[in-house]
Amino acid sequence: MEKPAITKFEIHPLLKQRWSPRSFTDQSVTKESIQNIFEAARWAPSSSNDQPWRFIVGFKGDKTWDMIMETLVDFNQKWAKLAPVLVLSIGKKISDKNGKPSRTFMYDVGQSVAHITFQAMYEGLFVHQMGGFSAQKAAELFKIPEDYQAITAFTIGHKGEPELLEENFADMEKSERIRRPAEDSVFSESFGNKSNLF
Amino acid sequence: MEKPAITKFEIHPLLKQRWSPRSFTDQSVTKESIQNIFEAARWAPSSSNDQPWRFIVGFKGDKTWDMIMETLVDFNQKWAKLAPVLVLSIGKKISDKNGKPSRTFMYDVGQSVAHITFQAMYEGLFVHQMGGFSAQKAAELFKIPEDYQAITAFTIGHKGEPELLEENFADMEKSERIRRPAEDSVFSESFGNKSNLF
Repeated sequence: MEKPAITKFEIHPLLKQRWSPRSFTDQSVTKESIQNIFEAARWAPSSSNDQPWRFIVGFKGDKTWDMIMETLVDFNQKWAKLAPVLVLSIGKKISDKNGKPSRTFMYDVGQSVAHITFQAMYEGLFVHQMGGFSAQKAAELFKIPEDYQAITAFTIGHKGEPELLEENFADMEKSERIRRPAEDSVFSESFGNKSNLF
Repeated sequence: MEKPAITKFEIHPLLKQRWSPRSFTDQSVTKESIQNIFEAARWAPSSSNDQPWRFIVGFKGDKTWDMIMETLVDFNQKWAKLAPVLVLSIGKKISDKNGKPSRTFMYDVGQSVAHITFQAMYEGLFVHQMGGFSAQKAAELFKIPEDYQAITAFTIGHKGEPELLEENFADMEKSERIRRPAEDSVFSESFGNKSNLF
């Protein structure tokens, strides 16, 4: 199943084809793809080049995958169990530049994961990010130091058909993709004042 | 001047070629490119599909560009003055889903700006993001409501040669690009325990 974004303006094909499936086939992800994906993350921009991103990666059948699965909320466990790869994204809260709290570490980690998602699409893989997990449980299980914080969990894998999912998830998989129009998010002169660009 | 990332593993050409120049030519950015760029932002993923991103966009010569310029720290004003387009990224701190503070709005806005950066590269344009600006001054000038927060400022434009910049910036423009190796950021079983992927 494809779910291309119904765009008003032309965007890069990999951005257009990107979405967050819940169904993944049991095909494993090659080591080469994983290497390329984390190399893409590596080259994201960040404030003061702090590179505050860290990742914990588990492969189905290994201990790390089981531990990441344990941090997910029940709802996410029910579909993410199909995914061959589970990842935790973690951010460093303190800037290496000056030892003070970083104002942008979450933003920077988000950019790094966007690079991951984009590279994954280039590798023929899909990513589904989740806020629904316990950062506290992750901190305990993986002994994450105090200066760091687990931010999201995400799956990587080959997209499967909706029928691989339990019924309610299969319905969600087929639901329409919705976004606020770009013109409602882009302002000039004053917040909320729509620009004349669209 | 090109500054491709010296990658250990293969990544998408647009990610490889991406960097954050300070020199921009005086060539203006087309309306079509700007439309495509914010359409790309629109289709970023976000927690609960909250889409917490908002943008204020200024074009050199207009009032909004001058106002965004005024929020930048002196250091950034000195080079960003070349850029034909200045943008403020803004995040909604409260989730539309439940009215509570969003844990991931900064992360989500980061992903949206990564989409912008990627689409800009596809349009032949470069982006340079800045943490060095006054979010408070931005809030005052643009009447940003309390539920929202300015996160970064960034330039968009056609990359120029280093010689367009003042001397110290020209030197910085030519400096080597540095990143921690991917293997230092990817762990298994326990935080800090390197995976055997690299």
